[in-house]
Amino acid sequence: MVQIALGSNILGANELLARKNRKLFEQDGTLVINLMSSPGAGKTTILERSLEEITGKLKIGVIEGDLYTDQDAQRIGKKGVEVVQINTEGTCHLDAGMVNKALERLPASDYQLVFIENVGNLVCPAEFDLGEDFRVVVFSVAEGNDKLLKYPLIFREARVILLNKIDLLAYTDFSLEKFQADLAQINPSAIVFLVSGRTGEGVKAWTEWLLEEVSKKQNRF
Amino acid sequence: MVQIALGSNILGANELLARKNRKLFEQDGTLVINLMSSPGAGKTTILERSLEEITGKLKIGVIEGDLYTDQDAQRIGKKGVEVVQINTEGTCHLDAGMVNKALERLPASDYQLVFIENVGNLVCPAEFDLGEDFRVVVFSVAEGNDKLLKYPLIFREARVILLNKIDLLAYTDFSLEKFQADLAQINPSAIVFLVSGRTGEGVKAWTEWLLEEVSKKQNRF
Repeated sequence: MVQIALGSNILGANELLARKNRKLFEQDGTLVINLMSSPGAGKTTILERSLEEITGKLKIGVIEGDLYTDQDAQRIGKKGVEVVQINTEGTCHLDAGMVNKALERLPASDYQLVFIENVGNLVCPAEFDLGEDFRVVVFSVAEGNDKLLKYPLIFREARVILLNKIDLLAYTDFSLEKFQADLAQINPSAIVFLVSGRTGEGVKAWTEWLLEEVSKKQNRF
Repeated sequence: MVQIALGSNILGANELLARKNRKLFEQDGTLVINLMSSPGAGKTTILERSLEEITGKLKIGVIEGDLYTDQDAQRIGKKGVEVVQINTEGTCHLDAGMVNKALERLPASDYQLVFIENVGNLVCPAEFDLGEDFRVVVFSVAEGNDKLLKYPLIFREARVILLNKIDLLAYTDFSLEKFQADLAQINPSAIVFLVSGRTGEGVKAWTEWLLEEVSKKQNRF
């Protein structure tokens, strides 16, 4: 089938560029996170909250991926970190080449931690390695329990899942037990933090873990 | 650029198949709806609620699009309508060819109303005409106000927007005023129904409007 053959070529080229990015990130021990979710799961709000916790403690860069607007980049820029916007002009995911280009304006060696906020989409971003250290999926309880089994790839590839909008839990039918049971099937080693971008609950536990990971990577290089 | 040229070819082929589907739908005056949203915005629950209101009043078929599972088809099958499952095996949207194939098992002429539930994704499905009469976007207040301007295509192409999870409105920062103002910019003629899949609120207003549309199409043929 034409589409599939094509996808393979694109992914092959992407793999080479992802390797190039990864090499750049290793040179100075920069920890790089690929932040993914559905539209509206709360990536940007969680990123804002996370930056409030850790800005000043280390040098942080952010690469913002969006179809057209720079709304998120503007929000993140107010947190006192360097931000580079990538507009995909309708493409449903970031790829390693786009990130490579962004690194010309945001040299990885200047930062200890780089967040890449992907396009809001549970399908396409999961297929593209950007050269990141690991992937973090923001998943909102308002999205419903069935999403883990319906979009298994993105959840399988995540090192961390930030289970967001936990403040809405009581007003939804979301079951934490079912979530844990499904995750045990798909990705038993994923680390889960219960968070609320709205109230800030749980964000500190996540950022403390993250700072540890930054130290670990710095010590390795 | 290779990717873009390719996209055009796929869309060109899609356009021909969409026309073929549309012709089938016109033969017997079948009204066909392409139901789209983010993952977790509530398409399936709204469809269940809608079917509860209108089953028995007319002959209804449902085409369910999902990456891998048939969870939604199983849910919808319990509502006493005919359901055909399309598994895209990782592809981020339905296309007209997939729908055309599904119609072999769900002949449009047997039904007055066909719902096509697309893959949960705000980006890719918007680019593929399936031959439908019109598009309905389910959008949850839990997704946040910024989505209209960030994903303009899907909202621009919608005839109807079902603003869902209205029962959560009081617990979120979602602003109905901002939503209306943004929509007035992008798609002023869109018809909006405030609904809750969870409580059933507002579903009757939507299905009454829909039944009118079915009659209108039947009377035209």
